[in-house]
Amino acid sequence: MLRRHTDNWVSSFDCQQPLITMSRRITDDIGSNEMDTNSGTSSSRPSESLPYVHKVGVPPKQNLLKEISATVKETFFADDPWRPFKDQSGSRKLVLGLQTLFPILEWGRDYNLGKFKGDLIAGLTIASLCIPQDIGYSQLANLKPQYGLYSSFVPPLIYAFMGSSRDIAIGPVAVVSLLLGSMLKDEIDPTKDPANYLRLAFTATFFAGITQVTLGFLRLGFLIDFLSHAAIVGFMGGAAITIALQQLKGLLGIKHFTKNTDIVSVMRSVWSNVHDEWHWQTILIGVSFLVLLLVAKQIGKKNRKWFWVPAIAPLVSVILSTLIVYATRADKHGVSIVKNIKKGINTPSVKEIFFSGDYLGKGFKIGIVAGMIALTEAIAIGRTFAAMKDYQLDGNKEMVALGTMNIVGSMTSCYVTTGSFSRSAVNYMSGCNTAVSNIIMSIVVLLTLLFITPLFKYTPNAILASIIISAVVGLIDIEAVILIWKIDKFDFVACIGAFFGVVFASVEIGLLIAVSISFAKILLQVTRPRTCILGKVPRTSTVYRNIQQYPEATKVPGVLIIRIDSAVYFSNSNYIKERILRWLADEEEQLREHNQPRIQYLIVEMSPVTDIDTSGIHAFEELHRSLQKRDIQLILANPGPLVVDKLHASKAAQLIGEDKIFLTVADAVLTCAPKLEEA
Amino acid sequence: MLRRHTDNWVSSFDCQQPLITMSRRITDDIGSNEMDTNSGTSSSRPSESLPYVHKVGVPPKQNLLKEISATVKETFFADDPWRPFKDQSGSRKLVLGLQTLFPILEWGRDYNLGKFKGDLIAGLTIASLCIPQDIGYSQLANLKPQYGLYSSFVPPLIYAFMGSSRDIAIGPVAVVSLLLGSMLKDEIDPTKDPANYLRLAFTATFFAGITQVTLGFLRLGFLIDFLSHAAIVGFMGGAAITIALQQLKGLLGIKHFTKNTDIVSVMRSVWSNVHDEWHWQTILIGVSFLVLLLVAKQIGKKNRKWFWVPAIAPLVSVILSTLIVYATRADKHGVSIVKNIKKGINTPSVKEIFFSGDYLGKGFKIGIVAGMIALTEAIAIGRTFAAMKDYQLDGNKEMVALGTMNIVGSMTSCYVTTGSFSRSAVNYMSGCNTAVSNIIMSIVVLLTLLFITPLFKYTPNAILASIIISAVVGLIDIEAVILIWKIDKFDFVACIGAFFGVVFASVEIGLLIAVSISFAKILLQVTRPRTCILGKVPRTSTVYRNIQQYPEATKVPGVLIIRIDSAVYFSNSNYIKERILRWLADEEEQLREHNQPRIQYLIVEMSPVTDIDTSGIHAFEELHRSLQKRDIQLILANPGPLVVDKLHASKAAQLIGEDKIFLTVADAVLTCAPKLEEA
Repeated sequence: MLRRHTDNWVSSFDCQQPLITMSRRITDDIGSNEMDTNSGTSSSRPSESLPYVHKVGVPPKQNLLKEISATVKETFFADDPWRPFKDQSGSRKLVLGLQTLFPILEWGRDYNLGKFKGDLIAGLTIASLCIPQDIGYSQLANLKPQYGLYSSFVPPLIYAFMGSSRDIAIGPVAVVSLLLGSMLKDEIDPTKDPANYLRLAFTATFFAGITQVTLGFLRLGFLIDFLSHAAIVGFMGGAAITIALQQLKGLLGIKHFTKNTDIVSVMRSVWSNVHDEWHWQTILIGVSFLVLLLVAKQIGKKNRKWFWVPAIAPLVSVILSTLIVYATRADKHGVSIVKNIKKGINTPSVKEIFFSGDYLGKGFKIGIVAGMIALTEAIAIGRTFAAMKDYQLDGNKEMVALGTMNIVGSMTSCYVTTGSFSRSAVNYMSGCNTAVSNIIMSIVVLLTLLFITPLFKYTPNAILASIIISAVVGLIDIEAVILIWKIDKFDFVACIGAFFGVVFASVEIGLLIAVSISFAKILLQVTRPRTCILGKVPRTSTVYRNIQQYPEATKVPGVLIIRIDSAVYFSNSNYIKERILRWLADEEEQLREHNQPRIQYLIVEMSPVTDIDTSGIHAFEELHRSLQKRDIQLILANPGPLVVDKLHASKAAQLIGEDKIFLTVADAVLTCAPKLEEA
Repeated sequence: MLRRHTDNWVSSFDCQQPLITMSRRITDDIGSNEMDTNSGTSSSRPSESLPYVHKVGVPPKQNLLKEISATVKETFFADDPWRPFKDQSGSRKLVLGLQTLFPILEWGRDYNLGKFKGDLIAGLTIASLCIPQDIGYSQLANLKPQYGLYSSFVPPLIYAFMGSSRDIAIGPVAVVSLLLGSMLKDEIDPTKDPANYLRLAFTATFFAGITQVTLGFLRLGFLIDFLSHAAIVGFMGGAAITIALQQLKGLLGIKHFTKNTDIVSVMRSVWSNVHDEWHWQTILIGVSFLVLLLVAKQIGKKNRKWFWVPAIAPLVSVILSTLIVYATRADKHGVSIVKNIKKGINTPSVKEIFFSGDYLGKGFKIGIVAGMIALTEAIAIGRTFAAMKDYQLDGNKEMVALGTMNIVGSMTSCYVTTGSFSRSAVNYMSGCNTAVSNIIMSIVVLLTLLFITPLFKYTPNAILASIIISAVVGLIDIEAVILIWKIDKFDFVACIGAFFGVVFASVEIGLLIAVSISFAKILLQVTRPRTCILGKVPRTSTVYRNIQQYPEATKVPGVLIIRIDSAVYFSNSNYIKERILRWLADEEEQLREHNQPRIQYLIVEMSPVTDIDTSGIHAFEELHRSLQKRDIQLILANPGPLVVDKLHASKAAQLIGEDKIFLTVADAVLTCAPKLEEA
């Protein structure tokens, strides 16, 4: 028996000797006192024939304060934000601090003409894309077109100074506009009371910013990690479908359209009165430009060199369609047009924000939701491009930047803005180098507001609908859904649940489903950890693995080896205890059927058990007692540092027996096996 | 280098040969095709000098339906309730089914006189304890004394037929009475509108029962596991202090007492007007009997043979004090007495329950909270005694029994009942064998209601206060708190938080704190899993362990080995990725300082990673790309079955390289090391 383990060391000895001699040499080497503690029950003398078993490490006792501060650091400062400040002088620390708050101070010093060229082109490209999108998205939020443009002027400027992403393009986005519009509409009717509706929108924007800054400042950025990727994919897809369906109003020229966003109501609106409601001139303009835009999109996809085709197609469509309508005076024939966009830049709106009264609470609530969703989108974009260009993005710093930009935005007639998927991609592909492209875009929007808005008068609404449809199509990520289906079925349910929630009920309900399923998954993971039976992988002496994964692995007769695949906490301790007893009952039943020797040792492989709490300790004590009554020995293998520590602190180690705790499963088996043969 | 691993096999070969020959023999044995897939990059020929590396198992592809049903089974039917039904005939299944619902049918068949003797004594003992407690506890719930006695008559009978615990004693308990009284009082003032207050109490009891049955029936029993042991200890301790403080009213004979339960208000009530309010005769009776009761308690604790002393002390005190008051007519001198307990058994109260109107919702809400707390207490007691006598307790079945008993109770003038800590302990120590002791107790209470209640007329309220104080003292578990402090500091915070919440604010707030902290802990556990650096434990060739736990473990030059101690999900994938990069940055900094060779291989030990989702896969892909840019190889060791499966499904395995996935860390190190030497 003893050969198995000692041969790990054979290499360090002369191989010409018989193994038994070597083992003796090794034992002498270690000294017998170590053997005493580890070699099994006290009844068996620490004889030379027993294999060497390495002691399980008890970590050095840690200072309580140190322990707490380490936990706090790991939870809130996992990114180690002070690393650059280490070993720096006072003035240097101030400079670094300012650079942390305003990254432009850092990258601005190395800025040169070469970089500017890329940024200029990228800035002009995203500006051409954002102007028609802004006008359309503001309608999703039930706001006048100029507010979309305002929101593409101030926030990108703020972000350029404070943000750390080089590729994100800031401005209003489809999903947040829809969500905001949908939630605001539930409080105030935008057609009946547009003034208060606008004020509530600014209030919500203000609190969205406050939420973002607070999360960043309190370093609670990890909260957005609770929304699972799958749920976001489903939610985004559903929102895209909903937004596209909403555009049927503009595209078909329907005048009486439902205010609900679910697919059933919308379809009823669309098909209820085809003859009276559908307007063929509008459809002609809208659909033909939609086809044009989708073709442009395909061209851009086929060849990455032609990425600018879909990027400028919307602006070209707007210009062309406006000229057509102006030339044919189609508006006189019932084609709905934008009519009037207010000329001039943002007006201050601090006084518009509700800082008291009934709407304060409502704006606050809407702001939190919109702020969180906006954050999720921006961080996802930021991380994606940061990974592509391999630079670090500080999530918490990013939140402070996004929040500040929305707070300032709410005071300058902007509504909630964030990073846009489509425009950021265009920005990246046009070769942007820094956030300067956002400044360029902002200047172009400023010029538009100052001089060009009257020219949009004859722009047909149908063209805006086409632009929005072609933009949101990109949010439906079929490939991601297929991948999710392949990888994790539960994730797929979350994805589809969020999708159907948005499409068939409302954006809010879809969001609620997404969050609930995400949480359910976390709770499930915590309450029902996996356990498995281990067997020895053939042709190895120390490798014990899950027998389901390695069907060739063999069980050791008389010994049941179970691995617990999670930390043991109050939420799962009872389940784990009962699951282990169930494994045992199943195994014993099988053994009885085949008339095989009964289980005498139950080895619990604790490698994955990184932590344990009071309930967990109790569960192990109970397990020990239950097994004792059945005359089965409980043996623990490789408990982690915290677990060893707590087993000792609670005296559970003494109850189970310190000599029943081993470094590896192999060690434990080696120690049980000789005794099995005796039995 | 190759020696290290092959020596695992040395034992199976003749040791007289040089090692190198053996390794060749082994390699021949396996065949070179397996070597090909595992031995490293394609550039290195599958030479004989490379060590054998066991293939990582890809588990057999599972049927989707099977997979889902397995998950559902593990989540909701973890206790395998159908085990006894397996391979049984139809009629036998019916009998088994009935026995499942009414365990009395099963144990009743083996019932005999010997068992009855034990049950009779236990039943009489707990009856003597429960009668004075019931009268006191009903006052905590702001109900008349008879309702406490009613609640000790019907529910224990129902439980005796349906429950599976043999030791639990059913009836009103202090904490639930306090909680119920506190929540009901917020809705209806019991002094101003006692009729509706009573009706709301029955409504809450009804819904508490419904909640319990529903949880049991839907097999959601695991939900109560979300309240951590530490939080319960704190909550119970706080509730005990609060209850004891409330008794100062009765004990000191104070007439004008606050309705708040927080310690500040109570202390103000007690000390504000000592001269006018305190009543010395009452204090004399109350305090002297309190001392008597506490002494009795100590006697019981000192010698387990005298457990009956504290068990009958309350009844003896009641009888003695009643006689004293009757003899001295102390009630005429201002000693407050019970006065009148309605004679006769429970009246039907189905019609009293609010099945519509405003109070329906309120009763529902209160019922859920009270039902959950009652459940937590009963299940904790049931589990404790089941573990002590080593029998299995089915949590879900138990919930159905407790729920049914409360539903029936609500229709027969009872309020929420559950298992009582103190009485169950007495029941156990008096030698109960089955739930028949509950039937005995129930009969004694019935006789009391029919014949003896008028005798309680002169019982001083002070004695009830003393009994309650001496009873709830047992709920303060200082030892458990010390143990919690030793084991887990975070648990300690939860415990103390719940305690202070109850004592300084209210029972509800304490409960809210307990639940919130419990959840926070779960979320923390999920978002911030542990990671650690591994080193080779000296004098072993394959054992790699946390270098913090085993400071003697040595790092392999040029290789960084990191273990992730949790499943990788959306909630932590990003953190894990960034934490690994931070470990790497720290390590590289140290190496630079000491002018040591740079890291070329990053091995991620995945043993504890039991599952991964889409976000997790993305995180690994991003990690791979980040490392690639730094010219570091990402290597995975021992991914579990689900992880391997998903790595392949998502093509991430191909991206990382299938030859970069190993069975053990040792295998991975063995494969990197030769290449390091080349470099």
